[in-house]
Amino acid sequence: MTGAAPARAIPRRITLLTDFGTEDGYAAALRGVLATLVPDVLVEDISHAMGHGDIAAAAWCLTAFWDRYPPGTVHVVVVDPGVGGARRGLAVEAEGRFGVGPDNGVLDAMLAAPGARAAQLDRPALWATTVSPTFHGRDIFAPVAAHLAVTRDLSRVGTPVGDPVRLPDRPPDPLPTGWRGVVVHADRFGNLITNLTAGNVPPGAVVRIGGVDVGPLRTTYADVAPGCAVALIGSGGRLEVAVRDGNAAQKFGARPGATIEVTRS
Amino acid sequence: MTGAAPARAIPRRITLLTDFGTEDGYAAALRGVLATLVPDVLVEDISHAMGHGDIAAAAWCLTAFWDRYPPGTVHVVVVDPGVGGARRGLAVEAEGRFGVGPDNGVLDAMLAAPGARAAQLDRPALWATTVSPTFHGRDIFAPVAAHLAVTRDLSRVGTPVGDPVRLPDRPPDPLPTGWRGVVVHADRFGNLITNLTAGNVPPGAVVRIGGVDVGPLRTTYADVAPGCAVALIGSGGRLEVAVRDGNAAQKFGARPGATIEVTRS
Amino acid sequence: MTGAAPARAIPRRITLLTDFGTEDGYAAALRGVLATLVPDVLVEDISHAMGHGDIAAAAWCLTAFWDRYPPGTVHVVVVDPGVGGARRGLAVEAEGRFGVGPDNGVLDAMLAAPGARAAQLDRPALWATTVSPTFHGRDIFAPVAAHLAVTRDLSRVGTPVGDPVRLPDRPPDPLPTGWRGVVVHADRFGNLITNLTAGNVPPGAVVRIGGVDVGPLRTTYADVAPGCAVALIGSGGRLEVAVRDGNAAQKFGARPGATIEVTRS
Repeated sequence: MTGAAPARAIPRRITLLTDFGTEDGYAAALRGVLATLVPDVLVEDISHAMGHGDIAAAAWCLTAFWDRYPPGTVHVVVVDPGVGGARRGLAVEAEGRFGVGPDNGVLDAMLAAPGARAAQLDRPALWATTVSPTFHGRDIFAPVAAHLAVTRDLSRVGTPVGDPVRLPDRPPDPLPTGWRGVVVHADRFGNLITNLTAGNVPPGAVVRIGGVDVGPLRTTYADVAPGCAVALIGSGGRLEVAVRDGNAAQKFGARPGATIEVTRS
Repeated sequence: MTGAAPARAIPRRITLLTDFGTEDGYAAALRGVLATLVPDVLVEDISHAMGHGDIAAAAWCLTAFWDRYPPGTVHVVVVDPGVGGARRGLAVEAEGRFGVGPDNGVLDAMLAAPGARAAQLDRPALWATTVSPTFHGRDIFAPVAAHLAVTRDLSRVGTPVGDPVRLPDRPPDPLPTGWRGVVVHADRFGNLITNLTAGNVPPGAVVRIGGVDVGPLRTTYADVAPGCAVALIGSGGRLEVAVRDGNAAQKFGARPGATIEVTRS
Repeated sequence: MTGAAPARAIPRRITLLTDFGTEDGYAAALRGVLATLVPDVLVEDISHAMGHGDIAAAAWCLTAFWDRYPPGTVHVVVVDPGVGGARRGLAVEAEGRFGVGPDNGVLDAMLAAPGARAAQLDRPALWATTVSPTFHGRDIFAPVAAHLAVTRDLSRVGTPVGDPVRLPDRPPDPLPTGWRGVVVHADRFGNLITNLTAGNVPPGAVVRIGGVDVGPLRTTYADVAPGCAVALIGSGGRLEVAVRDGNAAQKFGARPGATIEVTRS
């Protein structure tokens, strides 16, 4: 063994996505529990800045990253306005990754994956000895995540369920000469991301938002002049309206739910 | 050894709680020092968003997490308006965890633990070769934290002291038929956390804040209708006034120091 | 081997500095890619709160920490208003550390180091199979950073270039009895950091900003009364104007570019 590099253990990796903020120490308490249960765990903060109780925002964020992480990763998502009430706790397995959180739709991105399985968290023996009715993140979800990170076995943490809470699906509406979609997310840069994909935007079609023609599909921001609007397929594969070096959400006064139209001329 | 999983080294874990923000690279400089001194260290950001010089807020935050982490963890807390002046640097050992920071009260939560010990940082040989008079976090506290993470020996970093700076204790005042307490913290959600505990709120007692009756003790937010105030024992064991799906600090115009009363009818 | 502590592998450490925010999952997607490519990587968030497209702010932040990390560290800096356009991707090696990002000046701090070398990222075989024209951070810079973290070999990721984009250098102007400099950064605390160093401030010289005399050079904030301005050499070695327990940027209405003068009386 002399001189050999030490073998590299594959670490257990757990990510956190919450609306806790950082100033009160709530996320920190959750991390402390994880470090106690799994001493070599790597915990990665995705965000603690979700809006208070904004389930849709957390669910959207999860779509961007859950399957970029390697199999075995455990994603903890806690935006939980119903904590302590009747809502169940949920664990999900999808494509080898795990999700843990309240059964209120925040884990929708993983539930939408082919072959996803869900389990209701009903094994109190795994939880903290005393569970605070207002902090399931620390006392239930963190211990369950720790257990999944080590065992990678969904059946250990709960009973299978077939009816996890899903978010409403919003497919685009067909128009005589194209598609009508909606903005599903406005990101930090003011980019307006829609429920339309490349297949909805054939060559020659033009994109309109708020009655304004933003032209045909382009490839990137630099394809238009600074300050001009541009329609492109964003990094998540969705039709997106942006303003080069600007903010499309502000320019068009558009929010999630705003209408966008694609028409062949 | 063929096929055996590599043994898992227990990592050295250091947490950071500061008012540095992230944009100026100050917290990053501190992390770089830690990574240089302890190559396999795991550094966890608790928060860098404390208010500028807000010692009470940092001290409160520390109460939420310091003993959730496993023994051997080193907590670095740097909210340090007196940097470069006469205040001492401090290291604390409590229940096997360590704390490092200025001697101005930020480490109060650990100093309050039974058997806590404190040492004045007076071993410049451990510090950076050149110490900036305005950045002890990078040049003194980080190297000391690195040393504690590896040695777990308080005596290596300073001389024992018996008079570390403590924050004022605010016990509840007895009333003829109950207790008068104060709000000690308003969290991100507007929940008002007090210096009263479950023992101050017997069955049948009602809670009043700002002259408003918020009823008897309940278990969780969902025990009242949305928008209604609720008194409960929060996740830290304190009496807390919240508003379901709302913000109690705004509703009651209450801040730390506001009065709360518990009376038996 | 019985009883021996497991050997500690030196981890691969990658830092992230972006203007992505955290709420959209963009930084998270980048982290997921890193974890997939280098299972035991330690990823450290420096900041995701840079202003949208603020190259100068990111470049400044990098100066504070890049060489505090140990050799072998890879710093990923993505503030990239020209993503998808003609700007190149860049990797830099300086004093054993690596930098990866757009060739727009964000890596200036590393390029300024003696012996720094730069390479243009032109090895698509290392990148994601499909590269989004709007998210080179995830699809190019992250895979390149992963490759550098493992190989520590700049020549593997691109072709050497001698003309990386640099930021303008602003040396101080000599005055008959001193120096005229400029504010180069206002930090979170409102401290005004300049392009002057200790060598520009001889004993007996006084510092003026916005026509106000802030006195001779002092050592630390505590050398003046609360609320008073103070000139000192900051933790980065630059002349800095601060207000004790206050905000110099607000007090003097000063921003980057504001003039500061040092004169011998």
